[in-house]
Amino acid sequence: MRILLAQLNPIIGDLSENTHKIKKAIRHGINQGVDLVVFPELALCGYPPEDLLLLPNFIEQTEECLQEIAKDVKGLTVVLGYPRLNSVNSEKKLCNSAAIIQNQAIVGLQDKQLLPTYDVFDERRYFEPGKASQLWSIQDKKIAITICEDMWQHSDLLKFSNYPQDPIKSLIPLNPDLLINLSASPFCTGQLRRRFSAISKAAIALQCPALLCNQVGGNDSLIFDGHSCAVDEMGRLRCCAKGFQEDLLIVDLQALCPVYHWQEDPLQMLYSALVLGVKDYFQKSGFKQACIGLSGGIDSALVACIAVEALGKQNVIGVSMPSRYSSEGSCRDAQKLADHLEIPLLTIPIESPFQSYLDLLTPFFHHKAADVTEENIQARIRGMILMGLSNKHGYIVLSTGNKSELAMGYSTLYGDMCGGLAVISDVTKVEVYALAKWLNRREELIPWETIHKPPSAELRPNQKDSDSLPEYEILDAVLKEYIEEHQSPLWIAKKYHLDLEFVQNLVHKIHQNEYKRRQSPPGLRVSEKAFSVGRKLPIVQKWA
Amino acid sequence: MRILLAQLNPIIGDLSENTHKIKKAIRHGINQGVDLVVFPELALCGYPPEDLLLLPNFIEQTEECLQEIAKDVKGLTVVLGYPRLNSVNSEKKLCNSAAIIQNQAIVGLQDKQLLPTYDVFDERRYFEPGKASQLWSIQDKKIAITICEDMWQHSDLLKFSNYPQDPIKSLIPLNPDLLINLSASPFCTGQLRRRFSAISKAAIALQCPALLCNQVGGNDSLIFDGHSCAVDEMGRLRCCAKGFQEDLLIVDLQALCPVYHWQEDPLQMLYSALVLGVKDYFQKSGFKQACIGLSGGIDSALVACIAVEALGKQNVIGVSMPSRYSSEGSCRDAQKLADHLEIPLLTIPIESPFQSYLDLLTPFFHHKAADVTEENIQARIRGMILMGLSNKHGYIVLSTGNKSELAMGYSTLYGDMCGGLAVISDVTKVEVYALAKWLNRREELIPWETIHKPPSAELRPNQKDSDSLPEYEILDAVLKEYIEEHQSPLWIAKKYHLDLEFVQNLVHKIHQNEYKRRQSPPGLRVSEKAFSVGRKLPIVQKWA
Repeated sequence: MRILLAQLNPIIGDLSENTHKIKKAIRHGINQGVDLVVFPELALCGYPPEDLLLLPNFIEQTEECLQEIAKDVKGLTVVLGYPRLNSVNSEKKLCNSAAIIQNQAIVGLQDKQLLPTYDVFDERRYFEPGKASQLWSIQDKKIAITICEDMWQHSDLLKFSNYPQDPIKSLIPLNPDLLINLSASPFCTGQLRRRFSAISKAAIALQCPALLCNQVGGNDSLIFDGHSCAVDEMGRLRCCAKGFQEDLLIVDLQALCPVYHWQEDPLQMLYSALVLGVKDYFQKSGFKQACIGLSGGIDSALVACIAVEALGKQNVIGVSMPSRYSSEGSCRDAQKLADHLEIPLLTIPIESPFQSYLDLLTPFFHHKAADVTEENIQARIRGMILMGLSNKHGYIVLSTGNKSELAMGYSTLYGDMCGGLAVISDVTKVEVYALAKWLNRREELIPWETIHKPPSAELRPNQKDSDSLPEYEILDAVLKEYIEEHQSPLWIAKKYHLDLEFVQNLVHKIHQNEYKRRQSPPGLRVSEKAFSVGRKLPIVQKWA
Repeated sequence: MRILLAQLNPIIGDLSENTHKIKKAIRHGINQGVDLVVFPELALCGYPPEDLLLLPNFIEQTEECLQEIAKDVKGLTVVLGYPRLNSVNSEKKLCNSAAIIQNQAIVGLQDKQLLPTYDVFDERRYFEPGKASQLWSIQDKKIAITICEDMWQHSDLLKFSNYPQDPIKSLIPLNPDLLINLSASPFCTGQLRRRFSAISKAAIALQCPALLCNQVGGNDSLIFDGHSCAVDEMGRLRCCAKGFQEDLLIVDLQALCPVYHWQEDPLQMLYSALVLGVKDYFQKSGFKQACIGLSGGIDSALVACIAVEALGKQNVIGVSMPSRYSSEGSCRDAQKLADHLEIPLLTIPIESPFQSYLDLLTPFFHHKAADVTEENIQARIRGMILMGLSNKHGYIVLSTGNKSELAMGYSTLYGDMCGGLAVISDVTKVEVYALAKWLNRREELIPWETIHKPPSAELRPNQKDSDSLPEYEILDAVLKEYIEEHQSPLWIAKKYHLDLEFVQNLVHKIHQNEYKRRQSPPGLRVSEKAFSVGRKLPIVQKWA
């Protein structure tokens, strides 16, 4: 039996283009003589469609496209994910479903049973859970079809839910010949290894080979990494589709590739994810060019590298906006970076509007001392300049704040937080350094001066990040424990031998700055818990 | 039997202060000799606690507070809403529960059965549904306890869910003497009438009186209106607590008040809700003063009136920021409004930074014609001035965009969209006019010139809203049908005799401007579907 895993990159809601892509993949399958074509979860509308699912005519048109696709299915079987109108009178009107299509007709439907409703997922908002899976006869094989989460309960790798049902376990007595999983499983650090492990455990439990077809592509904050795969009945990886791009992978069950040892470079993975996130945000929304404020610092340097990789150097415009507090070194570092990346660097000094604001506002400041107000004015002038260029030329501004800064509110709302996409908002400062060094592994791309100098916002004389923030190694560790692991300040203080009050202050700062993050541009999610998406907290609260 | 409905205004996560308030209400109940004190849903932690619920030590401390409260319960029964750690090995770790407390001990637990997961609600993210309700013996009565949504399935008034279970129906064979409902039911236009209707239908079905205790107060975007109430066994309203403020309402079942005919002025309700939303956003976060850009237009005038009502005139600072395009009339109208409200009006003309930006940016604009860029620069200078004052003096900036503008993206990101709270972001332009006229019903508060002149952003010579937008009556009707009712453009075009392409363009604009709204300040929700909360849509999509 030969199976095509059609790892597609759909655009959310672009039903006609997605249909076109799906039909093209089916034709490819027919031409290659495969028996079965498998698509990702909700491939027809793209994942996650969010509240588009609540529009009745969105569901109607999806159904029409499915019927249109079915017409092309001749001489093979297609399994396609789509949102299905649920005929039962139940809490939700839809099921997250897989249509089994043969001989131009939908011959079966398998609904997703486990509906993730945590972190970035809110499937209970839309879907009714499916009934237990049955086996489907395709050619001479008995095939079990599952959708994403269905496979995970068995793996013991779920962090936020513990379903009473285990679809894999309930399949064991049915003795399937093959397990298929339709996924839309987003990337985050470590997720690919967990995904391989989950499919592997499912194959071992069922003593049959298992195939997973994953979505690929960036959709707002979520980045789907692809890496569709096949494991044998012993759970060994035998085949893997490309990461971070579309792929049509044909798996021959009678002639699996040799056992495949997955090697990954975590920094390469992280970088590829960010690049895809930027690329698709632009491509899918019809934009081409980005502009980035280059301060000479490491965050903006990293974002510029990612943007050049994603969009091409001809589509990235650097802007240096020195102030009275900018060091010569910073301007030089920004220029050096632009030279390395071969991108233009516009230089627009902000002194004139800065002085103009000070003249205008000083009478209303009632002789209060200079403080964060004047720092914010500088950051906001820069934001305005970038937005002016963006408005005039149709650029998207990329904001450059990292996760550690965003956690602490060490950033200016409407200033450096301006932009259409926050590229590294889920990358900690420690990871920023690691990525920068990794990028420089062959040749200097990011100036070494940028990497080695102490980080500074340069918004007042001799300012250093370390004036306001703890060492980034400590800050990032606390962040991870509190944000991703939900540990208490007391537990964290003990583990890292820190002062309890110090940890409590950091936690307080995280909550206190929720109001800023609420207004930040969407950020690319690459960790298990990002600020931008999948984290829902009150702004006004007195817990911490 | 005498029952105290303790309609409290908790602060989210302020466990010690909420505990203090709860204990005080219990003492009041004891002093008044009541038999039973009922609190709202999740009263102990405040609703909605969102992801604080995922922190294990948040749940531990909530449990400790509950035990602390129980110590005070002597000689009466207390029913208190709190998030309960679920002992069963189930998908979610918590139940949304009511503790029944007698003689210093928790004698029973009734879990919420229907967990709303739509619009602003995401209870399936945290909670496991409860089992069918039983009756509780309190004094000589058999009492049924339900939590908010539990009561609604029976009413046939739910729009987004249709639960297979109906807790009210399942209580009928048990013949309760009294129904109690703990609620955290947020305000939106028409909601109070629906809530009365729901409790009334439940009482009729069970042929017994029914009491509802609702939360009151503003929590970020959500405004809880209170209006706790009692209905008799025929479903007739017999008693109602105050709206939009805390209240301790004692209901004597043996001596119910006469049948009460609820009269409401929808504009008064809407206005009260907005005032409470502003008041609590400030009070609960420890801020006192607001600053507002007063353009002389109707939106900022309305916001200023609301702010003065919520915070006191001594705490509202108006700022007039005329540009080269501002009419004399606008400046005069802004001054007149400030005079009527007796608030200061700072005048800070924006010409100097505007010219400074034009000088700075023109060389980079490559001789392209003036367009929205220059308009945005003006709006952003105003935003920066307000933020500068806010930073220096600790004000919260109130943004003044209305729902119709936000829908169309007729607003400047980082400009007039700046602020800590978007006061009227869920109020359509038609409603803005209605509220303004209503405010002027006794005397001129908002200058009549402001109400009667054609709306304009005054960002270029002789600009009018009508240059870019359809008539607001038509726009608002289309918005309501599409946003709140999920109708298709075709359906809308037919109903209102509009050109299909015209409606499709409006719908396209709504989706296209999702990216702006994503970065807007939290807005007060007063309609069935607000942009700020309860609406989740992809930024990058090609549906419309």
